[in-house]
Amino acid sequence: MSKHSQEKTVEILCIGSELLLGNILNSNAQWLAEKLASIGLSHFRQTVVGDNFDRLKEFILATSQRTNILITTGGLGPTPDDLTTETIAAAFNTPLIESKEILIDIKKKVKYSSKDLPLINKKQALYPKGSKLIHNPTGTAPGIIWNPNDDFTIITLPGVPSEMKNMWDQSIEKWLKENSYKNKTITSKVLKFTGISESELTEKVNDILEGSNPTISPYASLGEVRLRITSKAENIERANALIEPIQHELIQRARKNYFGSDEDTLASIIIDLLRQRNETLSVAESCTGGGLGASLTSVSGASDIFLGGIIAYHNSIKKSLLNVRSKELLEDGAVSAEVVQDMALGVKKKLGTDWGLAISGIAGPSGGTPNKPVGLVQFGIAGPNILESIEFQFNPYIGRIGIQKLSVIRSLDILRLFILHGAKVKA
Amino acid sequence: MSKHSQEKTVEILCIGSELLLGNILNSNAQWLAEKLASIGLSHFRQTVVGDNFDRLKEFILATSQRTNILITTGGLGPTPDDLTTETIAAAFNTPLIESKEILIDIKKKVKYSSKDLPLINKKQALYPKGSKLIHNPTGTAPGIIWNPNDDFTIITLPGVPSEMKNMWDQSIEKWLKENSYKNKTITSKVLKFTGISESELTEKVNDILEGSNPTISPYASLGEVRLRITSKAENIERANALIEPIQHELIQRARKNYFGSDEDTLASIIIDLLRQRNETLSVAESCTGGGLGASLTSVSGASDIFLGGIIAYHNSIKKSLLNVRSKELLEDGAVSAEVVQDMALGVKKKLGTDWGLAISGIAGPSGGTPNKPVGLVQFGIAGPNILESIEFQFNPYIGRIGIQKLSVIRSLDILRLFILHGAKVKA
Repeated sequence: MSKHSQEKTVEILCIGSELLLGNILNSNAQWLAEKLASIGLSHFRQTVVGDNFDRLKEFILATSQRTNILITTGGLGPTPDDLTTETIAAAFNTPLIESKEILIDIKKKVKYSSKDLPLINKKQALYPKGSKLIHNPTGTAPGIIWNPNDDFTIITLPGVPSEMKNMWDQSIEKWLKENSYKNKTITSKVLKFTGISESELTEKVNDILEGSNPTISPYASLGEVRLRITSKAENIERANALIEPIQHELIQRARKNYFGSDEDTLASIIIDLLRQRNETLSVAESCTGGGLGASLTSVSGASDIFLGGIIAYHNSIKKSLLNVRSKELLEDGAVSAEVVQDMALGVKKKLGTDWGLAISGIAGPSGGTPNKPVGLVQFGIAGPNILESIEFQFNPYIGRIGIQKLSVIRSLDILRLFILHGAKVKA
Repeated sequence: MSKHSQEKTVEILCIGSELLLGNILNSNAQWLAEKLASIGLSHFRQTVVGDNFDRLKEFILATSQRTNILITTGGLGPTPDDLTTETIAAAFNTPLIESKEILIDIKKKVKYSSKDLPLINKKQALYPKGSKLIHNPTGTAPGIIWNPNDDFTIITLPGVPSEMKNMWDQSIEKWLKENSYKNKTITSKVLKFTGISESELTEKVNDILEGSNPTISPYASLGEVRLRITSKAENIERANALIEPIQHELIQRARKNYFGSDEDTLASIIIDLLRQRNETLSVAESCTGGGLGASLTSVSGASDIFLGGIIAYHNSIKKSLLNVRSKELLEDGAVSAEVVQDMALGVKKKLGTDWGLAISGIAGPSGGTPNKPVGLVQFGIAGPNILESIEFQFNPYIGRIGIQKLSVIRSLDILRLFILHGAKVKA
């Protein structure tokens, strides 16, 4: 989008050498990006530069040629390496002036840590002539909103996340809404899928992905694919109404691979489903070593549904605590349909739950054989009227941790499908 | 630093509209920044752009004028919005050619998820004529190293963090070390600390941090602080010799808070220590729900040391499987010294191990009381001649998942100190 189209374009600039050294994660950029998306402002670039006068000045001048609004974070502190305000002023040949009001505010705030205003804090009361100061309710560094040129606005915010967020909520979002575009609301919804790759899912829904309002963007993480549907309209009802039929169609096409939306996780969906049915769950884990239980207990308030489990990492524990039969362990090995069924039934009985879910597999990198290669995982499910097992061969290239994590995700999805459809579902 | 100075300059470009929408945190940029710092390469800018042909092309051409090496992540996937390779080729008017070898590799990898190679995956076998392909051991997207112009190299990596990291470790770091600076070898060592904050540790070693060769950079993640020592010299022996005395001094000063270096984890250290002593371990988990077991089984080959455990999330399981006495559960509550000692002893006996490690706490956000607030966690240790408990109060603001993760880390460190020093150590 060019600088002179109807809608204002925005960039984010995060200033700080600690970001270039990898000392801290740039969570400010993500937070601001999400906020901009939520108010429908197009934002085409994020940049990080260090606390360096020349590089910062060069960047700001270049940006002023291509973008309407530049939002910066960082470099507003009192120390000598904080250069943002003076660099911006210098970039547009504008003098700095001192704000009496800010000086009083800073004195009030630093009195808790030292009696006299340290000399270096005084620099925080300086601002480029002609700019508007933005109050910082919780820190000493005010921000500015400034139009040094026609059609270019620069907004500075501090790098401390809590101060930055406060100032956004109290001042910046309102200013942007009033100054950036007219008569438009934006909203979005995330649909979540599992048991399907990003390319398989996008092939199924390719024609829908091409729409322009709503837009749909896919993204994948380990064991999960998400589609974010984003719509723009004159009000929130109309924006939601644009999403609704698309959401319905996507869920229809994905069928059993769709499991939830927005804040849902596979574990939270399982807990909700079982709570509705007043049923309880326990787990028996070998190769995942407790990861399945940890996933279920990441959901707050799960303890009335998920009672606990047995980590049977060594085969001796499979026998002693889960009553897996020795004959089967010897004949079929720990990764077999018989063993995971014994494990699921064993934990269900021992903990007195309605469902027992078991995992045994070869996470590697060692321990694989031609018949039972690395990545082979067996899942056992014992339920009110069910005793089944399902075998999966995961890609060994994803590595030990990847196989363990995917096994947890797959086991939750298998249980979800059994609860919902009560029958063995194609692996 | 100008483009034509002695040392090569680097920029990082992360490509992906999901980053501009704030859907995901840009952890790749931090990871790469840290890696570049560790091999002493100066890196002056990080940028994020979306999956957009024109903007990507414009950015790449501009960067090629000011920087020697551009490292990109993302946009190498099979879907239509993945544009990185074709955009780079177009920017330098170079045709794409298909790699037979990569095509075979992709077929091998996707067979685990679908039978026929989806048409769209074929695009991942294309690369600009004249570029060098970088093998992706765990995914279908290969990267490239390419000099489209004199004095400008572009390196592409996938956006999936595990794949990106793998390719860096196996190919990119080596290439950069060999091609980025002359007559100089750089090496680094990471020391790992726990049970101490970044500011406490840096206060202890502040005078050492000021050196210029080796340099030392601290960085902190949940429950862990690392110091990276980086030295430059004419050869690797000399570079290592510069590190050795500093390493020794840092470990001396940090004492019990130092637990390992480089690839070590708390879990791998525990497994090693117990293997040396020919002792075994089991766990009893309440609020962590299996996370401790999962952490121990992330170490390959742990099954002769870590036999398994009991997830006693609901109090009824603490009684039935761990023989926690009802009276104590009623009088002291599940988060008490008595209960975690019963849990540790119960699991040690039941699984027949030398050590039993137990965790019970209030992970929140609900369930806290004035006497037992959210973040209160009890750890129980039963060993060959030990039965002890230790109480920790974690900051409730780190949230449920944070409390669960820190509880796992803390429990491993408590066990480490008991194994090494055989006595209760200050919490």
